[in-house]
Amino acid sequence: MLTEFDLIARYFMRPSHRASRAALGIGDDCALLEPSPGMQLAISSDMLVEGRHFFAGAHPIELGHKCLAVNLSDLAAMGATPVAFTLALSLPEAKEEWLAGFSKGMFMLADEHGCELIGGDTTKGPLNICITIFGELPSGQALRRDAAQPGDDIWISGTLGDARLALAGYRQEIVLDSATIEAAALRMHAPMPRIGLGIALRGIAHAAIDISDGLLGDLGHILERSAVGAALDADALPAGPTLLQQSQSMRRRFMLTGGDDYELCFTAPPAKRDAVMAAAQAANTPVTRIGMIGAGAGLRVIDGDGNPLDLQLRSFDHFASP
Amino acid sequence: MLTEFDLIARYFMRPSHRASRAALGIGDDCALLEPSPGMQLAISSDMLVEGRHFFAGAHPIELGHKCLAVNLSDLAAMGATPVAFTLALSLPEAKEEWLAGFSKGMFMLADEHGCELIGGDTTKGPLNICITIFGELPSGQALRRDAAQPGDDIWISGTLGDARLALAGYRQEIVLDSATIEAAALRMHAPMPRIGLGIALRGIAHAAIDISDGLLGDLGHILERSAVGAALDADALPAGPTLLQQSQSMRRRFMLTGGDDYELCFTAPPAKRDAVMAAAQAANTPVTRIGMIGAGAGLRVIDGDGNPLDLQLRSFDHFASP
Repeated sequence: MLTEFDLIARYFMRPSHRASRAALGIGDDCALLEPSPGMQLAISSDMLVEGRHFFAGAHPIELGHKCLAVNLSDLAAMGATPVAFTLALSLPEAKEEWLAGFSKGMFMLADEHGCELIGGDTTKGPLNICITIFGELPSGQALRRDAAQPGDDIWISGTLGDARLALAGYRQEIVLDSATIEAAALRMHAPMPRIGLGIALRGIAHAAIDISDGLLGDLGHILERSAVGAALDADALPAGPTLLQQSQSMRRRFMLTGGDDYELCFTAPPAKRDAVMAAAQAANTPVTRIGMIGAGAGLRVIDGDGNPLDLQLRSFDHFASP
Repeated sequence: MLTEFDLIARYFMRPSHRASRAALGIGDDCALLEPSPGMQLAISSDMLVEGRHFFAGAHPIELGHKCLAVNLSDLAAMGATPVAFTLALSLPEAKEEWLAGFSKGMFMLADEHGCELIGGDTTKGPLNICITIFGELPSGQALRRDAAQPGDDIWISGTLGDARLALAGYRQEIVLDSATIEAAALRMHAPMPRIGLGIALRGIAHAAIDISDGLLGDLGHILERSAVGAALDADALPAGPTLLQQSQSMRRRFMLTGGDDYELCFTAPPAKRDAVMAAAQAANTPVTRIGMIGAGAGLRVIDGDGNPLDLQLRSFDHFASP
């Protein structure tokens, strides 16, 4: 029988010869960590619940990847370099096959970003995965939500809407062939956090956020906290390759309100356009200019000709009635 | 209707005029934190699940207290000073009365220890509370599990076994009158983390751990990681005031294996006995000498006359059947 300590030793402790950033890792009451000189720690927690953030029976390798990816995405949105994370895991039972897959998916992504598991907790209960992640960045250089300035360009990395299209296919909101769902679902199951871009944008971008609940809602957080407004060009939004095949109205809806994209939305002054493009190239991540920050409150969505679009759209709220 | 953002604003954001240790708190992709110069961060995560760590329908004020207390106890066991914490919360529904109580219990204890909520997550799902806590301590002064030395005294703070007695009463393993259960249950519902003692023991104690799963099992972690053994004097163990009224065999069993005590078990060289007593007095926390670390492997329990006790006892394992 697999005990709690066997489980941790077998699936979550790594060979001790690996280079470690933590002064003390798994196995004590606390882990010990200190940021490099002159650096601040950026800290974020995300909790993922079965049936809410992922389907029951989700593939464990993809799930391990995704749980860490959404946390890394929060670091990317601050411009932080990943350092370490803790994992708290509630499991209905200790299934070895599931644990092997989950830890493999998680550690593959962790190793890619040099992010070390330094502690956590395991318990029996409904499947729930809570990761707290630690990055570091030079003091004062964080890409904060409250730093957008009137006149800033609004940018988005990568493409939008494919994860939402996959969800629509799974839910049978629309009829899609299985090849289309599968292609779109890659974005839902294996989001790639934009760590390199976030770091490259230090000192260039003003404000940034990652798109987890939909562009309108997430950009809305920047506007609210920066006390500014924005005009967003719906025709400039970069649709995911699979969503591109769908109708204009669906494209707009899914790009503006679809969750699970994990792209970076950021603002930067027009004088920094070349610097933004150079940062994007250095990070090997496409970026698109999609609008402008204004001094007045509110978020207007316009088309390519500047005509306002009347949209009845809202973002995802975990406690809203369905 | 209470949205996710209302919920956070109403119950978890504090007046902004409070002095803040974090460079950036709730409301961005990450919080920003840096330890004071020369200090390391001590980090611990605990996940509490309804029906496993607390009863369904637990009193929300007590629950808020307890969830933070078990995390503070991990800081105490490292000798760390509390700084901040994140809270990830999965709730079946956003009930205002529950949220008001839970946040009150949590913040009352947080304020007592100057520990600031700097971020987290809220989602809908089975009740699950995951706190990651941050403390700080001078680099190199942590009370680690692997630092016990042969010849060290073994000490315990406070008293043991009352929380386990309350559990036995609730489960009707034994017949107890309701006044006895109520008195014992104070220890189960409102554990007091030994923060002051942990800090006072810096530079005095060698190894330390907090007792969450039972003395035998938790002391066993110190022995295993320090590659030492121990002799424990069962007659020296300090029973909780309610447990004191029970039979010797029950006292021994509950003190040796009962969970939820959240006392500190620590080791220190005999030459430091006066320093330990002075630290305990400074922290206003009674301590008792209960045994000795030896060079040979294994944990022997003896009585006050030095006779070995044959005990078939084990510690709590979250994945053990049943």
